[in-house]
Amino acid sequence: MKVVVTGGAGFLGQRLIEALCARGRLTDAAGRERAIERIVAADAGGGPQALDDPRLACARGDIADAAFVAALLGDDTDSVFHLAAVVSGAAERDFDLGMRVNVDGTRGLLEACRRQSRPPKLVFASSVAVFGQRLPPTVTDATTPTPQSSYGAQKLIGELLVGDCSRRGFIDGRCVRLPTIVVRPGRPNAAASSFASGIIREPLAGEAAVCPVDPATALWVASPATAVAALLHAHELPAASWGPLRSLNLPGIRVTVSEMIEALRRAAGEAVAARIHFEPDEAVAAIVRSWPSSFDTARADALRFPRDADFASILSQYLRDLAGGR
Amino acid sequence: MKVVVTGGAGFLGQRLIEALCARGRLTDAAGRERAIERIVAADAGGGPQALDDPRLACARGDIADAAFVAALLGDDTDSVFHLAAVVSGAAERDFDLGMRVNVDGTRGLLEACRRQSRPPKLVFASSVAVFGQRLPPTVTDATTPTPQSSYGAQKLIGELLVGDCSRRGFIDGRCVRLPTIVVRPGRPNAAASSFASGIIREPLAGEAAVCPVDPATALWVASPATAVAALLHAHELPAASWGPLRSLNLPGIRVTVSEMIEALRRAAGEAVAARIHFEPDEAVAAIVRSWPSSFDTARADALRFPRDADFASILSQYLRDLAGGR
Repeated sequence: MKVVVTGGAGFLGQRLIEALCARGRLTDAAGRERAIERIVAADAGGGPQALDDPRLACARGDIADAAFVAALLGDDTDSVFHLAAVVSGAAERDFDLGMRVNVDGTRGLLEACRRQSRPPKLVFASSVAVFGQRLPPTVTDATTPTPQSSYGAQKLIGELLVGDCSRRGFIDGRCVRLPTIVVRPGRPNAAASSFASGIIREPLAGEAAVCPVDPATALWVASPATAVAALLHAHELPAASWGPLRSLNLPGIRVTVSEMIEALRRAAGEAVAARIHFEPDEAVAAIVRSWPSSFDTARADALRFPRDADFASILSQYLRDLAGGR
Repeated sequence: MKVVVTGGAGFLGQRLIEALCARGRLTDAAGRERAIERIVAADAGGGPQALDDPRLACARGDIADAAFVAALLGDDTDSVFHLAAVVSGAAERDFDLGMRVNVDGTRGLLEACRRQSRPPKLVFASSVAVFGQRLPPTVTDATTPTPQSSYGAQKLIGELLVGDCSRRGFIDGRCVRLPTIVVRPGRPNAAASSFASGIIREPLAGEAAVCPVDPATALWVASPATAVAALLHAHELPAASWGPLRSLNLPGIRVTVSEMIEALRRAAGEAVAARIHFEPDEAVAAIVRSWPSSFDTARADALRFPRDADFASILSQYLRDLAGGR
């Protein structure tokens, strides 16, 4: 089977492709387990690095370009993991860019899926950013998403399109609302949540880190490994498990910034933790505050989606990755 | 001030324009009550009929045509009532048409608003069709819209765009989810709810009427006069009354098809009621069943949105309109 990963050169996309290569098989829309013969990593910024696998091909292009997407999918795509997006901070700064990539890109991808002779499976990486104010203390499966950021609104529009296209039989779609993923390697990005990785990653690399939000700020987080496992689990579940509701809040753990720093202090020492400085940035803080930090994910739990144990284990995972040269 | 009504030649658009002409004043985005100097009725199908008012102009064109919409709004539009839409049955039969008019049309209109030097007020006629299965017995302000029709998904996408553009200050937007409006005059249309007017209107005109749903089917309905009053009320409320949540379920009344027929029998006699025949149409019935028929509209009630007394009074209103030659 042929699998397309949009945003395939991104951090999560690369991890997902590694996992796809490692497992080698997926369940197709007809419910048959089949060998993965081809993985196409589509990205605006080039191909995934440091992964040499004969099944992997890279396609560089703009997800909002209909011709690129049509050529990408062809008529032989069995599964799509749609991760390409303009992240929260960037979508807030540039409304048009966010609409183009997050809305038009998703819509064009669904159109290309629809034109295939067989409806493919499609997993859409949505976000807990679909939730804004006002929210109950704990968000449940019944809580209405009321986004208060353009990114959140655009992701929710994507979910609605995936849902309606699934109902109509154009695709077999599944949307998972990812928690904030920590710890991301590499450089800071334009996500409002970028600091959540930065305050761990930079001090461990001997660099100063700036935290733009209050230490009491709480986040709903998951590790990269758990996020990738959730994307694969969403793909593998039978369509009947999803029924008419094609969107789901993913399990995560609630952690405050000060708890994250305390875990860093315990794992790496006071000198490392002291590299974090607080410089309030109200634009970032307002977006982050609008996201919920506490969920009851009963539906995802019943469907056996994975969950991290605690923040210390997420941190250990990152330290192991670092030690392994990742 | 200049007011644009999209879908201005439609049944509700014409009623709204009559009401705007009659009241002569509206509150602008700055909170000042001002005289209406110009009303532009935009429609794909020509101008409103039988209304001779020097303030009224008609613009014939396609709401999904950006150049048409830009010219329509100019830089001097104070208020927009956005009623233009492809109705439920038609959007279900033709996915592309629904996306073009209901999504692209709304998005283009918001773009044109955004390019104005002053952000206009915008009232968006959404629908209870944003709700699909599975629903609680009574839908409340907290119930999550989970559309199970393309029309419902497209209206909800429109709400999200209006909400985000309001948050960003491009417009001062307000979305009201209209109940099924009965009794509509004229001919049947492509809405799945078209029968709800047909089973009253056609028998009173001496014609046979076909009812495609079970007599026990319940609907959430409002009269044309109440719907128009709600659109105006939505416009007149201060922005602070809306806050960050720019969408609202409108008050209505719950009525079953058999209660509607019984009211017709009492008002017009057995011979008239006997002109209704039941011919089940599962495609229509499935859409109508997916809509909720019972609401607790606490938020709208607190904001003093109008509500009909009962179905008998809605029927009396229609009979008075008929007698008045409307």
